[in-house]
Amino acid sequence: MSNNMAPESYPMNGGDGIYSYTKNSYLQREATNVVKAMTDDAIIKKFDVKKFSSTSENTLRIADLGCSVGPNTFIAMQNIIDVVQQKYQSQGLATHMPEFQVFFNDHASNDFNTLFTSLPPERPYFATGVPGSFYGRLFPESSLHFVHSSYALQWLSKVPEELQNKNSAAWNKGRIHYANANAPDEVAHAYTSQFTKDMTTFLDTRAKELVVGGLMVLLMPGIPNGIPRSSGLLRVTFDFLGLSLMDMANEGLISEAQVDSFNFPIYVASPKEMRQLVERNGCFVIEKMEMTCPHSRVDGPSSQEVTMHLRAGMGGVISKHFGDEIIDEVFDRFYKKHEEFSSLPESKNMEATQLFIALKRV
Amino acid sequence: MSNNMAPESYPMNGGDGIYSYTKNSYLQREATNVVKAMTDDAIIKKFDVKKFSSTSENTLRIADLGCSVGPNTFIAMQNIIDVVQQKYQSQGLATHMPEFQVFFNDHASNDFNTLFTSLPPERPYFATGVPGSFYGRLFPESSLHFVHSSYALQWLSKVPEELQNKNSAAWNKGRIHYANANAPDEVAHAYTSQFTKDMTTFLDTRAKELVVGGLMVLLMPGIPNGIPRSSGLLRVTFDFLGLSLMDMANEGLISEAQVDSFNFPIYVASPKEMRQLVERNGCFVIEKMEMTCPHSRVDGPSSQEVTMHLRAGMGGVISKHFGDEIIDEVFDRFYKKHEEFSSLPESKNMEATQLFIALKRV
Repeated sequence: MSNNMAPESYPMNGGDGIYSYTKNSYLQREATNVVKAMTDDAIIKKFDVKKFSSTSENTLRIADLGCSVGPNTFIAMQNIIDVVQQKYQSQGLATHMPEFQVFFNDHASNDFNTLFTSLPPERPYFATGVPGSFYGRLFPESSLHFVHSSYALQWLSKVPEELQNKNSAAWNKGRIHYANANAPDEVAHAYTSQFTKDMTTFLDTRAKELVVGGLMVLLMPGIPNGIPRSSGLLRVTFDFLGLSLMDMANEGLISEAQVDSFNFPIYVASPKEMRQLVERNGCFVIEKMEMTCPHSRVDGPSSQEVTMHLRAGMGGVISKHFGDEIIDEVFDRFYKKHEEFSSLPESKNMEATQLFIALKRV
Repeated sequence: MSNNMAPESYPMNGGDGIYSYTKNSYLQREATNVVKAMTDDAIIKKFDVKKFSSTSENTLRIADLGCSVGPNTFIAMQNIIDVVQQKYQSQGLATHMPEFQVFFNDHASNDFNTLFTSLPPERPYFATGVPGSFYGRLFPESSLHFVHSSYALQWLSKVPEELQNKNSAAWNKGRIHYANANAPDEVAHAYTSQFTKDMTTFLDTRAKELVVGGLMVLLMPGIPNGIPRSSGLLRVTFDFLGLSLMDMANEGLISEAQVDSFNFPIYVASPKEMRQLVERNGCFVIEKMEMTCPHSRVDGPSSQEVTMHLRAGMGGVISKHFGDEIIDEVFDRFYKKHEEFSSLPESKNMEATQLFIALKRV
């Protein structure tokens, strides 16, 4: 369908080079492993395979929204299909086993060529790619049985417009995000308002595309209820990136005006906000909603790991605004700031930062 | 599904540069225009929209097999949807108008990035890409209503194995195709046998994927019944390419052994052969089968056009075998030979070279 919203795209780094998303997405993968048990549980308890097996259609359609280029998406899709197949078997429906069709979705600017050439050769599904923003319709009505999205819904469809206006109270001078120290309240409000619009569209469109009884499992960065929006890991990340850019502006490597006009189109929601939006939509019941810690290791990831991971995921947005040539410098500076911070005791006391949600279409 | 056949891929030139398929596929497009009327007619007379509109599912799925990178595939898909929509309207089924989902299929090595970023912004369908060879399953059972394929089925899944064996009677020394002057009969037999296998697989897999009542429209290079396999345009094309390569071997620019071991994995079938294969498959009725002339112009295309068109479509196969660096030279030589030939009277007497087939799944 035509997509008049034309949302901005912020592709992960393509290819398979040293800074590629393919080689630097193991933190996201670790996150996926941590929540695998929760996804399995949602399928086992809430996915109505009896109902699906009684229809004339023998295809089960699964979409991964914001899939990027693998391998995480391949692992996630394989996991879902494994558990669904086990459920068919355990319910005595082995003879009704459906064929699976997986729709890998991301922006048209995503590196689908890499995605397609790296598909697992032995896969229990028919693979398809779907280009386009998930803040709009992507699939025919009632055509999906399972929707998965991991670490994609934090990306807004665009930077809130008020932030581009020098005369607005939401002009975020010298900062790059609402989580930065001293960002005006108006900045946070503009972000919240954009997120509300985007998530409303997301839920409305998915409600149309999912069959009744279908499941949607969302994993996204999250912030616990009742703590300030600008705290913990979120603040650290964006402060360090913002300070690195401001240092470079002060040294004349980039212009201050460039920093002033740059804001990350990323929002980190609380369970309370998500619950309100889902309830307002009215087409889903919340089967599970839980904040978890994305890292299984006690220490958390090293500064090197955090830097590579941020670069793979956010380098594209920075390049787009500031140009490719400054990327090494930005992340070198980020790395040093993170390294200093890691030695502080407060670095060990980060709250749970990931939100798992399982919704059923009713 | 896993694809154990692992057919070879021969992608068209990607991107949108001077030698790209995108910019050099207007001959194929002209061919599409010539057969548009036949496709429209097949839909109007044989596509059972009443039946489809009476099922609970409200999605009509169309696949373009071997779509390459556009724009031809976009034009073809739009045409099909326009006519189907008209048919719904003319049959009083406007209120049952389905949503359309188009599956753009080609090898995983096709430039899907270019395909996806050049999709028409205003399109009356949900777009998806399907990577993989059509000589194997690509879609769930009974999931497609319309299959289209234009100028793709002439590509064999691989060069017949006998042609790689120096001790075989099908060793094609100094030639690059069965249509070359003096190619042994065994070479042609090896090609025919490979085509028979490939087309059998193609029809078997499509029979599984198409719903009963679904239509399949195929457009491919063809050779009229009862004329020698090595004649006309086919012979001219491959002779000129083969002679260009042999000239270069004689001048030491490439090795003769390289030419000996190279054969184009292309087969041009007659209506009679196709009819036999469709009848042997048994799942389709032939609604129409007709040889036509691909060019609406009296003169036919210029040598420049033929050269650019061949280069966009076949340059990839030649590069893969001989290396990128010889491509300019090969096609310069081809162009000169074609230019000389164009001044001869025999160049005006080419037979119809394109085969249109409309099949209905029964």
